[in-house]
Amino acid sequence: MRTKNSEYRIGGVSCEALAEKMGTPLQIFDQEKIENRLQEYQTYFKSHRFETGVIYASKAFLCKAMLELLEEQNFCLDVVSGGELHCAKTSSFTMSRIFFHGNNKSQAELEQALEYGVGTVVLDNPEETELLISLAEEKRKRIDVLIRINPGIEAHTHKYIMTAHLDSKFGISIRKKEEIVNMIRSIEKSAFVNFEGIHAHIGSQIFDVQAFREEVRILAEFAEVLEKEDGIPVHTFDLGGGFAATYTAEDSPIPIQEACRAVLKACEEEADKRDLTLRRVFIEPGRSLIAEAGSTLYRIGFQKDTESKHYIFIDGGMADNIRPTLYQAKYNCDNISRLNEAKTVWTTVAGKCCESGDILIEDILLPPCENGDLLLVYTTGAYGYSMASNYNRLPRPAAVFVKNGNARCVLRRETFQDLEALECSDPVEI
Amino acid sequence: MRTKNSEYRIGGVSCEALAEKMGTPLQIFDQEKIENRLQEYQTYFKSHRFETGVIYASKAFLCKAMLELLEEQNFCLDVVSGGELHCAKTSSFTMSRIFFHGNNKSQAELEQALEYGVGTVVLDNPEETELLISLAEEKRKRIDVLIRINPGIEAHTHKYIMTAHLDSKFGISIRKKEEIVNMIRSIEKSAFVNFEGIHAHIGSQIFDVQAFREEVRILAEFAEVLEKEDGIPVHTFDLGGGFAATYTAEDSPIPIQEACRAVLKACEEEADKRDLTLRRVFIEPGRSLIAEAGSTLYRIGFQKDTESKHYIFIDGGMADNIRPTLYQAKYNCDNISRLNEAKTVWTTVAGKCCESGDILIEDILLPPCENGDLLLVYTTGAYGYSMASNYNRLPRPAAVFVKNGNARCVLRRETFQDLEALECSDPVEI
Repeated sequence: MRTKNSEYRIGGVSCEALAEKMGTPLQIFDQEKIENRLQEYQTYFKSHRFETGVIYASKAFLCKAMLELLEEQNFCLDVVSGGELHCAKTSSFTMSRIFFHGNNKSQAELEQALEYGVGTVVLDNPEETELLISLAEEKRKRIDVLIRINPGIEAHTHKYIMTAHLDSKFGISIRKKEEIVNMIRSIEKSAFVNFEGIHAHIGSQIFDVQAFREEVRILAEFAEVLEKEDGIPVHTFDLGGGFAATYTAEDSPIPIQEACRAVLKACEEEADKRDLTLRRVFIEPGRSLIAEAGSTLYRIGFQKDTESKHYIFIDGGMADNIRPTLYQAKYNCDNISRLNEAKTVWTTVAGKCCESGDILIEDILLPPCENGDLLLVYTTGAYGYSMASNYNRLPRPAAVFVKNGNARCVLRRETFQDLEALECSDPVEI
Repeated sequence: MRTKNSEYRIGGVSCEALAEKMGTPLQIFDQEKIENRLQEYQTYFKSHRFETGVIYASKAFLCKAMLELLEEQNFCLDVVSGGELHCAKTSSFTMSRIFFHGNNKSQAELEQALEYGVGTVVLDNPEETELLISLAEEKRKRIDVLIRINPGIEAHTHKYIMTAHLDSKFGISIRKKEEIVNMIRSIEKSAFVNFEGIHAHIGSQIFDVQAFREEVRILAEFAEVLEKEDGIPVHTFDLGGGFAATYTAEDSPIPIQEACRAVLKACEEEADKRDLTLRRVFIEPGRSLIAEAGSTLYRIGFQKDTESKHYIFIDGGMADNIRPTLYQAKYNCDNISRLNEAKTVWTTVAGKCCESGDILIEDILLPPCENGDLLLVYTTGAYGYSMASNYNRLPRPAAVFVKNGNARCVLRRETFQDLEALECSDPVEI
């Protein structure tokens, strides 16, 4: 039988009590951790020389409660679709602080951005540039634009490489200066669209600050050429995201203060050295802002011993967190019903989906578990809920924000009825 | 400018007209293809010696319209969660023809199955066995059970292997006979739970009929031991799924007639040879029943040339079909706005998600495309919609069933408003 020998708390709220009240799986966000992280970025991403801004990448995790925290702390927002834009709009987020990204924005989405008064569109390609110019003129709406450049760096985890081929689907290769200059010349002719500068994004879960320095150097070199050869002022650098989060003990991200300082210092030095007109610098953290503030609470069900593995089965899995299956992502966890017991059993944590690959954590040391124990998986705040599906018709978990001993449900648990909301049988008149 | 030089039809309905009327991305199912495939299975999976049944694996694609077709043709249904069970119940599917699978069914799900009058639970492990017995007795509800055996075969595509280690999260290793016999002995003591036989599932997208023959041989050998050594009659074999579908020209699945014949012949021979009490044989096709009947229609947006690739961007991607990103799955497609034009351009089809990995098809020959053309991706009927997410806040596509020139919307397109249905801000009383 299960005994409670500890009372694990997040934001002063007992996880056991949350599980009893809200059910499992449950996505728990430590609100103070989010607020502190937002504050850290706002404090440290400051320069005497540049106007600075921190843009939250909403694809990591978005809901109205999150948008409120971002709005309170004066954050900018990166959206990548009409759906994200709609969510920001209905949450009364300040539209001028929105950056609209994406390689294939539709005409409807660009019109939506213009009508909402979005601050900045990050242009991905020449066709989009022409479309936005014509729509802005038609609607007589002003908008700022950045152009997404592919700088030929790819950085992931501890490695970064200068890519031989510049084949990403995003942005324009830095080697295609003429194409970029042509885009800017078109923009310059428009009374409504205003070229502000350039954007790049070099990867995700980056631990090496040198990759960001290299990115800045390459963008600065390119800006210098645009300014000196073509007379095109580049006022803004948006350096993208990629700042790492700690998933397991093996991860040691660059401290935020250090990362911010390194990026801005590189910008200052490059701007001085090359005499750039650079005025504004932005970064786009997503994962590093929200991942560690989120955890997922599961209830342990059946257990099984196979020839070489001890399995515990949980009541969620790849439907609520596809990252282990999709990216072989690693997570850490604890049996919080047995925090005081020795970790003596190599355990594999498997989800309940009808799929062999639905393994959340392979071979982690845990105490002997019992049916009904609570398993807390850490660092699930980014790209968990936002990539969740209803595979196997599993309803999406509820999400709560906890702080100072109080809990607030910000996304209610999906029901079986919700899963039938799109069912219909309507003849289509052709 | 786009010219229409062809009028591609599915089920007698113009895809161009469907796109105009229903928008894109659009999941289109050829209803007659589904019906024919259901009919084929029902026709060919017949034996003079055994009662036979074909069980549709609902995780491949489930909605009420699909359940109606299955009910009409007397199919059985494999469900793996309370959500799938609920959908079957609200569609008035015959509960006695349901097989409830899964490695971690919750108590609530097992209770739901008993209350609904589900025909068969496929037991995964000893703990589940004990729980089901106690719940059935408490509720005084009768239920049949199979036990899932792990036969030590893993088959995928053209290869199958006898696994050295039997480490899947599913079922009980065939080498643990004592554990299985103990489960059956517990079941025998119950007046409500009835042991019917054994189930195994050896993999997916299997092209080699020999793998299924081997599965039958191993299960028969095991049944013989149970019958002769332990006096346990094994009346039912449920051989699982894994029958392949044709995604690209490289795939050549076993014709259904041949696969059905081979499986049943193997059962007949083994039953004769070993003098088994086997009476019933089931198979569980999912993918092979629905994959080829489904296609996804996208609208082509912007295009881009990088150093070595020509990209076309579509208005969907990994949110509506994660299989290319998740399994490196291959698909075929056509630009149906230009069916009569020569395929001269090696093209990479990329989705609109803000993720480098969101590439649907890499390097396929297409005619030169134009913005606004329609791209039809074939064989998306299985594990596309059912694994769809709202990543990047992309709404799920609509799904239509087409037949004899008529179209019927069976799942309406998700709206931005739908995506906010779970938003709340409710204090939790702890």
